[in-house]
Amino acid sequence: MANHPIRIAVDAMGGDHAPQEIVSGAVQGAREYGVAVLLVGPPDILEAELKKHDTNGIECEIVPASEVIEMGESPATGLRKKKDASIIVTAKCVKKGEAQGMVAAGSTGAAMASALLYVGRIEGVDRPAIGVLLPSFSKSCLLIDAGANADCTPEMLTQFAVMGNIYMHNVHNIDKPRVGLLNIGEEEGKGNSFAHTAFELLEKDTRYHFIGNVEGRDLFMGGADVAVTDGFTGNVALKSAEGVMKMFGATLKAEMKRTVRTKMGYLLAEPALKASIKRVDPEEVGGSLLLGIKGVCVISHGGSKARGIKNAIRVAKEAVVADVLGKISNQIREGIDFHEHASELL
Amino acid sequence: MANHPIRIAVDAMGGDHAPQEIVSGAVQGAREYGVAVLLVGPPDILEAELKKHDTNGIECEIVPASEVIEMGESPATGLRKKKDASIIVTAKCVKKGEAQGMVAAGSTGAAMASALLYVGRIEGVDRPAIGVLLPSFSKSCLLIDAGANADCTPEMLTQFAVMGNIYMHNVHNIDKPRVGLLNIGEEEGKGNSFAHTAFELLEKDTRYHFIGNVEGRDLFMGGADVAVTDGFTGNVALKSAEGVMKMFGATLKAEMKRTVRTKMGYLLAEPALKASIKRVDPEEVGGSLLLGIKGVCVISHGGSKARGIKNAIRVAKEAVVADVLGKISNQIREGIDFHEHASELL
Repeated sequence: MANHPIRIAVDAMGGDHAPQEIVSGAVQGAREYGVAVLLVGPPDILEAELKKHDTNGIECEIVPASEVIEMGESPATGLRKKKDASIIVTAKCVKKGEAQGMVAAGSTGAAMASALLYVGRIEGVDRPAIGVLLPSFSKSCLLIDAGANADCTPEMLTQFAVMGNIYMHNVHNIDKPRVGLLNIGEEEGKGNSFAHTAFELLEKDTRYHFIGNVEGRDLFMGGADVAVTDGFTGNVALKSAEGVMKMFGATLKAEMKRTVRTKMGYLLAEPALKASIKRVDPEEVGGSLLLGIKGVCVISHGGSKARGIKNAIRVAKEAVVADVLGKISNQIREGIDFHEHASELL
Repeated sequence: MANHPIRIAVDAMGGDHAPQEIVSGAVQGAREYGVAVLLVGPPDILEAELKKHDTNGIECEIVPASEVIEMGESPATGLRKKKDASIIVTAKCVKKGEAQGMVAAGSTGAAMASALLYVGRIEGVDRPAIGVLLPSFSKSCLLIDAGANADCTPEMLTQFAVMGNIYMHNVHNIDKPRVGLLNIGEEEGKGNSFAHTAFELLEKDTRYHFIGNVEGRDLFMGGADVAVTDGFTGNVALKSAEGVMKMFGATLKAEMKRTVRTKMGYLLAEPALKASIKRVDPEEVGGSLLLGIKGVCVISHGGSKARGIKNAIRVAKEAVVADVLGKISNQIREGIDFHEHASELL
């Protein structure tokens, strides 16, 4: 069926709930978003899973892969030893043009490494970075880099800004995304020496609208559309937020159970609680984007269930439709031209 | 009245709700925790405030200071221009031995600088650091440094570990505090180059029980008793957690108001909600400790009300009673001996 121009490869064996939830989510995604999905994994297992679903009118193709890199396994060792691992074969589908995008819910390290090794970087991008759409009361902010690069140079942050800006403009239809530097104070001159240098570079660059420093609390309150940072800080910010939410959820649950009155209150307030929790649920977002790769790469939570995978397919489709890659490629190229031109002038 | 051996100086003019809430909290703290408080600020204003309270049987002394460093003011300029600023006079009370501890709710920068300039560092401590007791479902974790030093060397983290360990052992009665390094993965070898070096140094040091890396989410789930990090990362972690909680609170409120059913649920569940919110409320904690200063220094939120100040006085009293300073001083000294001895051996 060639009536699905957009094809997304899904590592059907990745994550805690593979293959059942992954296949289920992929089938739902194919139907809801009108894309073709390539399910990567052992054909016998995947065929059996697919039989549980109505695949009438949707395109779900199985791509054989005999091995799986487990969640606890070292990505480096896994990728070296298991050449027919589902995550590698998934990345190769993108490399070969059989799919424009990939979705992976297993080990983040293995997914990043496979994308980097088998799909490759966009020319001019020094380091691909993870962009995470944060939950927000009003407008969502894209945090980039949320963990791909533990060590960054300040220069890399300008590329993260370019990529984040293009993503938020083209996929989230923000006219002029406000790009901020994640820092520990709003005033110019705040932060460590890395932040000072990054600020200067970000301020000079004309490829996006830089609004200066933003703080951790602005990330969730609509203070910026894109927040750039190194992957160490970004990952700590993300996991701290996740941690405190988990703690608050556990506290709330324990407190609600304490008396008959609060138990009744809980039952009545349940729709509001559920709606609120949905707003901060990573499954709702679907997955993070590994931006800077020559193919759309969406990395989902290891604990993703069908809903998470379905949403990840939406995220991948949106990035393909908006031609995020082509636009990043062009603008990174402009940046190279700009820098080359600048160095000629000096 | 010399029957109060513990004396805490309070900057009565600091923060958004000074002097009313500060004086009120100081009076409550003096009564509840049996300490003498020195209220620093313009005598006429403070006398008028004190008259609103019953001060029978408690010791509240006014220490004159004619100027105030405002919240928005640059701490550097403020401290240079206003030599009789209440925060400076508060620090001087500690320096002169008129108080063993100080509580400040105004500009964090001005409080830190005053403590450093006018009270001074404990000998051997390279940099004082902010320790924040994080809210938790089970056991609280002390995050240190939460923002005093944007740029740190890996060596500083070993001193933060010593100080945090002493505080949690002596004030929170934890037999053998578990000291972790805030990182982006639990396995050894995770993180950036700074984290790698810090890990090696922390592992070698025998003055505390190092448990390896901890992640942002462990901070709130009882994964460590002390989490050491540089002040940039620590501050981002703290503010991201604050931000997401603020967002979730606003979302929950909006969702609860949506229908009659959820409104009723809210009314019934209110005690549970309030109890949960109390657990994550900075006012409850009272304030952060600036550890490494030759006097107890508690820095409260700029928005602190009476309850926050009262609790900050408790935090200060606890640190004085446990002789945290004396113990830090001894153990930092041991560290110096150890390093000197080690260099002799080489």
